[in-house]
Amino acid sequence: VATPANASKFNYVSLTDEGLTPLQIAQATYRDELFAEGILLTLGRAGLVGRSATFEKVALGVVHAAENAGRDYNATGVHFPPVIPRSLIEHTDYLRSFPDLLGSIHSFTGTERDQASAIRTLEEGGDWSAGNGWNSSDSVLLPASCYPLYIWSEGAVVPSGGNVFTLTGLCYRHEPSPDPARLRCFRQHEHVYLGSPDGAAAFAASWGDRALATLLSLGLPAERVVANDPFFGRMGKLMAAQQVEQALKHEIVIPITSDENPTACASVNRHLDHFSLPFSISCDGGNEAHTACVGFGIERITLALFKHHGFDVGAWPSKVRDILGLQ
Amino acid sequence: VATPANASKFNYVSLTDEGLTPLQIAQATYRDELFAEGILLTLGRAGLVGRSATFEKVALGVVHAAENAGRDYNATGVHFPPVIPRSLIEHTDYLRSFPDLLGSIHSFTGTERDQASAIRTLEEGGDWSAGNGWNSSDSVLLPASCYPLYIWSEGAVVPSGGNVFTLTGLCYRHEPSPDPARLRCFRQHEHVYLGSPDGAAAFAASWGDRALATLLSLGLPAERVVANDPFFGRMGKLMAAQQVEQALKHEIVIPITSDENPTACASVNRHLDHFSLPFSISCDGGNEAHTACVGFGIERITLALFKHHGFDVGAWPSKVRDILGLQ
Repeated sequence: VATPANASKFNYVSLTDEGLTPLQIAQATYRDELFAEGILLTLGRAGLVGRSATFEKVALGVVHAAENAGRDYNATGVHFPPVIPRSLIEHTDYLRSFPDLLGSIHSFTGTERDQASAIRTLEEGGDWSAGNGWNSSDSVLLPASCYPLYIWSEGAVVPSGGNVFTLTGLCYRHEPSPDPARLRCFRQHEHVYLGSPDGAAAFAASWGDRALATLLSLGLPAERVVANDPFFGRMGKLMAAQQVEQALKHEIVIPITSDENPTACASVNRHLDHFSLPFSISCDGGNEAHTACVGFGIERITLALFKHHGFDVGAWPSKVRDILGLQ
Repeated sequence: VATPANASKFNYVSLTDEGLTPLQIAQATYRDELFAEGILLTLGRAGLVGRSATFEKVALGVVHAAENAGRDYNATGVHFPPVIPRSLIEHTDYLRSFPDLLGSIHSFTGTERDQASAIRTLEEGGDWSAGNGWNSSDSVLLPASCYPLYIWSEGAVVPSGGNVFTLTGLCYRHEPSPDPARLRCFRQHEHVYLGSPDGAAAFAASWGDRALATLLSLGLPAERVVANDPFFGRMGKLMAAQQVEQALKHEIVIPITSDENPTACASVNRHLDHFSLPFSISCDGGNEAHTACVGFGIERITLALFKHHGFDVGAWPSKVRDILGLQ
């Protein structure tokens, strides 16, 4: 494993891990092992880490494997930035479902007087970006890879047979954690279907098997489970129960730091008309459109690979290296 | 050029371009040409765009070429997320220099009552992320690729001969513009030197020539100029003048949408002790350390390539394709 040449000379900022549960201690232990190996690079804040060249090589291999798993769809590859218009929030029920996970971008639109006031607030140890000329901007951080696709597709008429897109988004979720598999910034590779309701259901059913097979082929102890999104608050509990009852979400889970609490490394999601309705996406002939997606968590799968095959990537099973496209 | 299969069916959101200057009209015209070709994908907001697979292939080629240009330094490759600790702002004079460019990340830490209030504010067309349980988080968006390197290196003792790192950061600057070469989110590939003051000066001098040669080798009409950063306000004008007087910043500029106003596509920056001092980075034996970097603007160079060689990447000069690593 290639570690930064002078990693040992660096004075890593310690993260505060007081009051952790046994599960969190196991997570922090793996995180610290990754820091010590130079595979992850600490920035001194929970959930914000850098990555070594070795980590990145494996991560790009995981993107390659995820892309290949749906090669026969002849999907259109698209790329979107990690910052998207606030209209995502305005046109969906995101604020009802996951307000606590969102990153809202604020910018300085003030005068030199406001600037001086912000600097004074900073010097006094205060919150310089509250007031002082700082305001909500027209954008938020990307919460899930496929969201910009619906913004871009606003008003589109898609063939009933469906269009499939692939993309790798850099997502943000505000959930600082000692778990290296719960980063605030992470990549999600997705295959996304826009088309008829039946087509969307068939796409999801097919990917339930396929996503499991893909992760099993990487030598990972993967299992498929019915799952729910982490909806906020008491109302959220009802929404989660409904999602499970309708089996709209499946996850492929892999133990990373705990056998009892395996980590969701991929998910298959039926959105029904959750995105097609607010963004006016319809099928040929004015028929209703549905969307569905399969997402692979690139950093989580990479961490699972290091956990189950060890830190020496050169010594991984050759079949696994082949699937990752590593020489 | 591979365009999204059904691009023509999509109802692109029009951007409001009222009251533009002649330069801005030239910029918006090239932007709309890129939208029409399906090379950029509109998200309906200035400076926030998606990219086609073709754009991305060229962009990764530019990263490859930038990386190769410094191959002989045997640099350590590192990778950092687009979100970094707020300590960057607290420990430097960023708030004095560029408050208007920064993206500050705010998160919801409120109760269900706050959530209800935020939803009500949204429904009334108000600013739901002001108050309502929304607060400054401990992080900001990455303003320049090399910044996290200094946070990670806090307290490091580097060899006087210097350490060189390479990284590609996804930067954010809050400057919505009709210019496709002024995106809010963009990639910057950097080679960064941490070591002795003499070493940092030599590194910068060497890269002035090398960065120019790299862009000329891509068949682009590049020129080197002494430049300054866009410091904020009246005090900023003095800082900019000082920077030019000391020739601390050089840019490699290329005409993209205007011959009179060419676009900065790479820059070489001597930071002196601007980062080593606040982050306590020193040289062996307790000697002073300086830092310097060369940054290549990946999206800008990609756009310059499309402008000067046309939209058919297959028809580009074979020497250019070779340097980009395209088959």
